[in-house]
Amino acid sequence: MLGKIALEEAWAIPENFQVYDVSSLAPKGVIGGDLTANLLDVHGTRLQQMDENGVEMMVLSLSSPGPQGATDPVKAEALASLANKRLEAEVMAHSNPGRFAALASLSMHDPVQAGGELRRCINERKGFVGAIINDFQSAGDDKNTMLFLDRPECDAFWSVAEELDVPVYIHPREATPLVFEQMWKDRPWLAFSALGYAHRVGMHVLGIVTAGVLDRFPGLRIVMGHMGEHIPYDLYRIDHKLNRARFPDMPMAKDKLVRDYFGTQLFITTSGHFSTPALLCAMQELGAKSIMFSIDYPFESIPNGCVWFDEHVPIASRDLVDIGRNNALRVFTRLRGSPHGEVEYGLYNKDWSKRLERR
Amino acid sequence: MLGKIALEEAWAIPENFQVYDVSSLAPKGVIGGDLTANLLDVHGTRLQQMDENGVEMMVLSLSSPGPQGATDPVKAEALASLANKRLEAEVMAHSNPGRFAALASLSMHDPVQAGGELRRCINERKGFVGAIINDFQSAGDDKNTMLFLDRPECDAFWSVAEELDVPVYIHPREATPLVFEQMWKDRPWLAFSALGYAHRVGMHVLGIVTAGVLDRFPGLRIVMGHMGEHIPYDLYRIDHKLNRARFPDMPMAKDKLVRDYFGTQLFITTSGHFSTPALLCAMQELGAKSIMFSIDYPFESIPNGCVWFDEHVPIASRDLVDIGRNNALRVFTRLRGSPHGEVEYGLYNKDWSKRLERR
Amino acid sequence: MLGKIALEEAWAIPENFQVYDVSSLAPKGVIGGDLTANLLDVHGTRLQQMDENGVEMMVLSLSSPGPQGATDPVKAEALASLANKRLEAEVMAHSNPGRFAALASLSMHDPVQAGGELRRCINERKGFVGAIINDFQSAGDDKNTMLFLDRPECDAFWSVAEELDVPVYIHPREATPLVFEQMWKDRPWLAFSALGYAHRVGMHVLGIVTAGVLDRFPGLRIVMGHMGEHIPYDLYRIDHKLNRARFPDMPMAKDKLVRDYFGTQLFITTSGHFSTPALLCAMQELGAKSIMFSIDYPFESIPNGCVWFDEHVPIASRDLVDIGRNNALRVFTRLRGSPHGEVEYGLYNKDWSKRLERR
Amino acid sequence: MLGKIALEEAWAIPENFQVYDVSSLAPKGVIGGDLTANLLDVHGTRLQQMDENGVEMMVLSLSSPGPQGATDPVKAEALASLANKRLEAEVMAHSNPGRFAALASLSMHDPVQAGGELRRCINERKGFVGAIINDFQSAGDDKNTMLFLDRPECDAFWSVAEELDVPVYIHPREATPLVFEQMWKDRPWLAFSALGYAHRVGMHVLGIVTAGVLDRFPGLRIVMGHMGEHIPYDLYRIDHKLNRARFPDMPMAKDKLVRDYFGTQLFITTSGHFSTPALLCAMQELGAKSIMFSIDYPFESIPNGCVWFDEHVPIASRDLVDIGRNNALRVFTRLRGSPHGEVEYGLYNKDWSKRLERR
Repeated sequence: MLGKIALEEAWAIPENFQVYDVSSLAPKGVIGGDLTANLLDVHGTRLQQMDENGVEMMVLSLSSPGPQGATDPVKAEALASLANKRLEAEVMAHSNPGRFAALASLSMHDPVQAGGELRRCINERKGFVGAIINDFQSAGDDKNTMLFLDRPECDAFWSVAEELDVPVYIHPREATPLVFEQMWKDRPWLAFSALGYAHRVGMHVLGIVTAGVLDRFPGLRIVMGHMGEHIPYDLYRIDHKLNRARFPDMPMAKDKLVRDYFGTQLFITTSGHFSTPALLCAMQELGAKSIMFSIDYPFESIPNGCVWFDEHVPIASRDLVDIGRNNALRVFTRLRGSPHGEVEYGLYNKDWSKRLERR
Repeated sequence: MLGKIALEEAWAIPENFQVYDVSSLAPKGVIGGDLTANLLDVHGTRLQQMDENGVEMMVLSLSSPGPQGATDPVKAEALASLANKRLEAEVMAHSNPGRFAALASLSMHDPVQAGGELRRCINERKGFVGAIINDFQSAGDDKNTMLFLDRPECDAFWSVAEELDVPVYIHPREATPLVFEQMWKDRPWLAFSALGYAHRVGMHVLGIVTAGVLDRFPGLRIVMGHMGEHIPYDLYRIDHKLNRARFPDMPMAKDKLVRDYFGTQLFITTSGHFSTPALLCAMQELGAKSIMFSIDYPFESIPNGCVWFDEHVPIASRDLVDIGRNNALRVFTRLRGSPHGEVEYGLYNKDWSKRLERR
Repeated sequence: MLGKIALEEAWAIPENFQVYDVSSLAPKGVIGGDLTANLLDVHGTRLQQMDENGVEMMVLSLSSPGPQGATDPVKAEALASLANKRLEAEVMAHSNPGRFAALASLSMHDPVQAGGELRRCINERKGFVGAIINDFQSAGDDKNTMLFLDRPECDAFWSVAEELDVPVYIHPREATPLVFEQMWKDRPWLAFSALGYAHRVGMHVLGIVTAGVLDRFPGLRIVMGHMGEHIPYDLYRIDHKLNRARFPDMPMAKDKLVRDYFGTQLFITTSGHFSTPALLCAMQELGAKSIMFSIDYPFESIPNGCVWFDEHVPIASRDLVDIGRNNALRVFTRLRGSPHGEVEYGLYNKDWSKRLERR
Repeated sequence: MLGKIALEEAWAIPENFQVYDVSSLAPKGVIGGDLTANLLDVHGTRLQQMDENGVEMMVLSLSSPGPQGATDPVKAEALASLANKRLEAEVMAHSNPGRFAALASLSMHDPVQAGGELRRCINERKGFVGAIINDFQSAGDDKNTMLFLDRPECDAFWSVAEELDVPVYIHPREATPLVFEQMWKDRPWLAFSALGYAHRVGMHVLGIVTAGVLDRFPGLRIVMGHMGEHIPYDLYRIDHKLNRARFPDMPMAKDKLVRDYFGTQLFITTSGHFSTPALLCAMQELGAKSIMFSIDYPFESIPNGCVWFDEHVPIASRDLVDIGRNNALRVFTRLRGSPHGEVEYGLYNKDWSKRLERR
């Protein structure tokens, strides 16, 4: 379909590579070519491929781990602030701001400071529609301390996100070596996107939900990628086993199931997981309103993701348009207004044949 | 359907509770009544519920963590040996051995010793059809050492399992507190069956596969429960991200995908995950030949699992009979012979209406 | 779920049996007991079973073929008028009109007269929310003439339905013997609900759509039961084979596919087809917004339909509530107002556990 | 996948166009180019496209209606005999007979004669693996008589098909104008492949099944195309409504459902219906063993069908290979032997990446 909006799309500034050098992630040419160059690029190859594949808008964010990888709060906050300033410039540089929007990077050492930075991005900068946090915040001199978002102090941050009406995207990051050494060191190929990413983000998001964060902030919306980091598949079992008689102290609202938050406060995207059986399972468990299209460029190929979505996915056209575009406008409400060019909610290809065209 | 075979069904001896006291797992009456009593029982309530719900046979195994929870090799081996002796007696006690079979418990401190114990169970004891290992073997004075099954020394064990032609069931266990403390201590409700079990067993099984164990032992068969510990849902992404260019040292056969092992060397069961969307996703990814019915009694209710399978599952009758019975006879080949009463392969309810009857 | 609305629910008056005696349809006690008594009853067994099974409202209609079975226009119009008068009385008799609503019966000999009768029902009678037409109108002395709804004269009727903003339900009827004799006489068991109903209504509805009726009346809404009379399953093939190069004279809008009308002008119900694979297929082809719950009482059992829908259907709760209730309020817009007690749009069981309760 | 076998693939001889001139079916260039030329061709464009799209073998048959369109028994039998002779020559002409096989054309005026012709084809001609019958046999001077295959005299034919162990493919044909005039004349676009074909073949096959033919000839196998001519979608409703209390005289075995014959005596193919939701529905209702790949060339495009099957279908590789190849070898058992080059059962692309290659 034309008019797709993609939400988990990475971009970087050279300073970010001091935290984590992605050039080691893949031999050049293996995953989508030259990762470093593709991360730095916005208006070149990226935009050309968006045009060729029916992607109207990309919501950009600093590549992982970003500030979450900086154990020094000062450095983390400086990196977030610098990235947000640069990202504003990139997003607004194009003559049509309807092609790009931005997620704010945030240091999570100090949730109050994070809330302030998010407020600045939304109110004082242009082009921001939400925030992105790359899993846990590394802290401590030995890089072994993990600060999670379900700790009580983070309520100060969640309240700002709720007040500003902007979603928070929980994105994976690499694991700090020492903590996970016993699990991953002998099988490093499982530590990253093949398995470890989903394990860690899945646990983190379920931690946030079961800690009652969504109950305390009923206007808060959380997004996770990769078709939900395993959670949709196990949703029956998760809810079945979060037994209140066994865990009477679990803070989540006693009359709710994890299932109940999807579609209003919890959302997933298709980033990096172009699998029809998984999408059909997610639709049966969560419904089409809980799912949004994304690619995960440049870690994934834009045509691969778009051909899959446009041509292979066996779902009704209404659901296709909701997942490909409309849900993004409902969840990231700021996409619908200035400066994003008043992106139109409800765009629909009247001529079905256009589904088969990517351009 | 009548004639169902259930494969991940727990049983215990009082000595096992010295390793891990399950009575703390649930308030009495909450999950299937009195857990301790239901674990100890074989021929009372358990058999009655099997009769009432069309379960012809249960393959029993010592409740988790069993020997894997004993850090002292001598104690672990003694517990395994004792449990196997007692289980043989239980399985053979019933006038019709076609109602029960057994999985051998094994200490995995010493893979050679484990192979010996498995050989004894299969060749000298009656009623054994495979082995069960409860995730990692705890070791070390501080309980913090985890011995995994993808370490090279375990080849000595896998070769015995292959030679004896018996599958190995990888079952979850509780996490040793210290190692996982940073992740689970503030959200203990996620550490067990709701999430942590699947994370740990999923990583363990993928570790075994990517370590090339199934390539070195092409006759070896591995089974995991809970609808595959998240793996079927992410199979596309797992194979996509196990990038050989990025991970040239990963030992798994270079011309295979994880997907390729399912149905011949890798199998899943429905234990504790009575979810139709998950089952349909697993069938689309793995095919019906890779999936076997199980309940996870007494942690799950026998009627809940059986009513779901018999009445709710929207699959063709041939697939239902394969998943409910026939696949178990193909994978656990010893079920087809003595002393299990020559369990008949291919049993089929000619009258479709019997699908709706549980008795 | 509680609050279900059921739309294809038959009721009769003794005079209707002069057209077609349903007592021959089934031996007493075979299909839902005594068909004749159950058709005549509204506030007895029917209401009790609605209460027991979470059916808040039934939209009633005269049992098939009704006026469509009367070849004499005068008799057909008199039967329609009589039935509508009696149905108003039944629907309004209950102290809570929120429990019942009505579809108008219409003779289709004269489309102008049909429009007039529909206008009277909607504007002058209470409780009517749409119309029902039982397939073709029998005409001619020999009962062999079939008047279809895609003939040009019917535009006079469709314009009234559009103006009044009420949907028209196309319901099956028995086949006039002579016309179909060659096909059905040697296999009468296929002539009715097993196959012939779907063939005839499917052809009739596709005839209406391809004749351009929905294009000429873009506010018109057509509903068919039985999971869409085969159409969703073959929608790909239907659209693929309605080749405009081969059939340049087909009146349907040249830039549309049959697929494009579903969800706005075409809708299906689950009446008499409680099949999960069919529902999942329909959802993938049409989307949840195109599907509405119905039972087809008393030709089907109320508990059978409700237990299937409430407990077996593996779909997201939002879709369940849309199909079970909300879509009916969107499509039959008059259900939302007086005298139906201002039926509430968007009712939702906050407590998920209520899904499993039928009461 | 490589090695696909396609079963409903049309071919013609000029004499066949005297019965029915397909050149009127589509403007040249609209459906797969020049229909007449493509029907006459075997070793040119057809074979080239087979090579390009991973089709190892096509089972050819004379294009519809063939002998079924000839009301004169003598002419019908002569056409069948001539076509079979020519088809043998075509199939054996290629240096590798593993690329083509044949279905025998038969006149069904006289079932005994039909059995004789089938026996000659199988025993005396080379390359035949089954028979094809294009719906009803036209008879009578006025072309209005339809001879169906569920008439008792046909038992003489079915017994030969069973004895020879060859399946019979029931293929659609155009409707004789007079009989169906009331239904189709005002909407001719629905009379053919968009709807009428499925209605007529679906009724015909259900007529055969409910007449008890499959019970009297338990070795007989019937195949229908187009994803089962609507039957899989309505299988629940069909079996539910073939009420034995209402239809005590229906000859089908009293303890069986239509559902029970699929996979052993009833099979469907994907010809002309490349729809993923329909395939998933059929798999859930019938199981993968009941479904076989086919294209319906030249009425459908070879690459369209193959790209859909090879790249879009979200099913397990084992099921893909069963549907794409292995089931054809199980059902059409003569494909496995001479002169078809001993087509190998169980061919499998070990390297999954080959699934994505069509060549």
